[in-house]
Amino acid sequence: MNAIPPTHPLDIAMRLTPTEDGRLRGATSDEYWNMMGPFGGTTASLMLKAALDAPQRIGDPVALTVNFCAPVAKGDFFIDLKETRTNRSTQHWSMELSQDDGVAASATAVFAKRRETWAHQPAARPAIPPRETLVPMDTEGRNAWLSRYDLRFAEGAMNFVARADDDPAPSRSLLWIADKPARALDFISLASLADTFIVRIFLVRGRMVPAGTVSLTTYFHTDAAALGALGSEPLIGVADTKVFRQGYFDQSAELWSADGRLLATSVQTVYFKE
Amino acid sequence: MNAIPPTHPLDIAMRLTPTEDGRLRGATSDEYWNMMGPFGGTTASLMLKAALDAPQRIGDPVALTVNFCAPVAKGDFFIDLKETRTNRSTQHWSMELSQDDGVAASATAVFAKRRETWAHQPAARPAIPPRETLVPMDTEGRNAWLSRYDLRFAEGAMNFVARADDDPAPSRSLLWIADKPARALDFISLASLADTFIVRIFLVRGRMVPAGTVSLTTYFHTDAAALGALGSEPLIGVADTKVFRQGYFDQSAELWSADGRLLATSVQTVYFKE
Repeated sequence: MNAIPPTHPLDIAMRLTPTEDGRLRGATSDEYWNMMGPFGGTTASLMLKAALDAPQRIGDPVALTVNFCAPVAKGDFFIDLKETRTNRSTQHWSMELSQDDGVAASATAVFAKRRETWAHQPAARPAIPPRETLVPMDTEGRNAWLSRYDLRFAEGAMNFVARADDDPAPSRSLLWIADKPARALDFISLASLADTFIVRIFLVRGRMVPAGTVSLTTYFHTDAAALGALGSEPLIGVADTKVFRQGYFDQSAELWSADGRLLATSVQTVYFKE
Repeated sequence: MNAIPPTHPLDIAMRLTPTEDGRLRGATSDEYWNMMGPFGGTTASLMLKAALDAPQRIGDPVALTVNFCAPVAKGDFFIDLKETRTNRSTQHWSMELSQDDGVAASATAVFAKRRETWAHQPAARPAIPPRETLVPMDTEGRNAWLSRYDLRFAEGAMNFVARADDDPAPSRSLLWIADKPARALDFISLASLADTFIVRIFLVRGRMVPAGTVSLTTYFHTDAAALGALGSEPLIGVADTKVFRQGYFDQSAELWSADGRLLATSVQTVYFKE
């Protein structure tokens, strides 16, 4: 008897079917559609899922880098998965997502068997008002993927009031984030959540400009058990940029549990045209 | 008439020779030897150089991720370079460094044609005393690679006084950094400089523990012209960690020019045993 496959929109977007020639076939999700292609978070999660589902996979993901080589077109795609190296407690993977016109995304992931060690968290959870006191972002009429998240901004909400060149808005956002509908946390959802921070250039300029992530790296600071124990608890997210220059900017983000554990950190470099 | 190849130890470590079957052959450098293999910065620079030297390469490096899959043994290695995708203004590469027993490192890089745009640097250069007032780190008797850098700590110098479990030292370092002997800055040296920050676990514990970087991502925030114009000017570096947990910690770093431009940022995830 087969288990009923999960029907959360994220799980539907993550469905990968092995092909006879050893690839994985998937299809883009309208529910996570962005402006010119799927929400990058789902692409990152798909790359991670390809390795997570491999029978020979060991341990939990520690690092994931996804390079966005070209827009993913609506429809089918294939993921090629390569086990680069397996050691006693670590494992390295490479992935490529392709469509008819070539590679649309490349990725590498590091998995590791985690065990309890001496621990220390120099970083502190940012202070944020209680979630119930904040209003969810109105995603009506926006790109579809935004409706798949409950985003409650305490700081740095998107505000469409254009700023003068010499008067950029602050680049930092602080918010409560959860899947919508709610979904139990796992590495798949965490990899997508790490990319839910609207690109900082929209924020500092107060308007949309052509922009797109070219590379995204996420580090996971938890094992599967501790992550699963959080259930579908909303997370606290913070994102900021250090420099916008010559058509690119960096964007870093942190995802915290309400009880003050740093679960994931990410960096991305983003193209922009101004 | 052939140009005389550069003879700085870093340039000697970077020598790659094309083989008849389309690979690049190199050899480890004793001058950049670390404890169990070459200094990871040189491995990162070698991966980048493989793409930089490709005749069909366009633009400047924007992002580089290197995964350290296994120690690189003393001697020869081969790099396989793959052009993953080339667009009008961006180009994606994948690299693997192999020895007899398999892949020792994998990497991806994104290159882009950079052009002047609206620019804004929310981050500020950290305040640091003048370089000439600080004493270079004594690298006598240490792993060889440390003697290839002039490191002048203003904060967070390595101090071998073991700390109690509940009394870790601060995880932040702030220092002046330069190649030794001096060498004109380029992306090759910048990729290595981004990895010169001693792993934070040594600092917070006040002693050496088994540790090694498993993945390193560096973003470049400058084009080749602006970088070259700095000559061999020493840089200001800052590094810190957000969380040590279950055998891994993150480490982030910034490299600044003295006049306050953020040139590169990096993150790495590091294995440790405690």
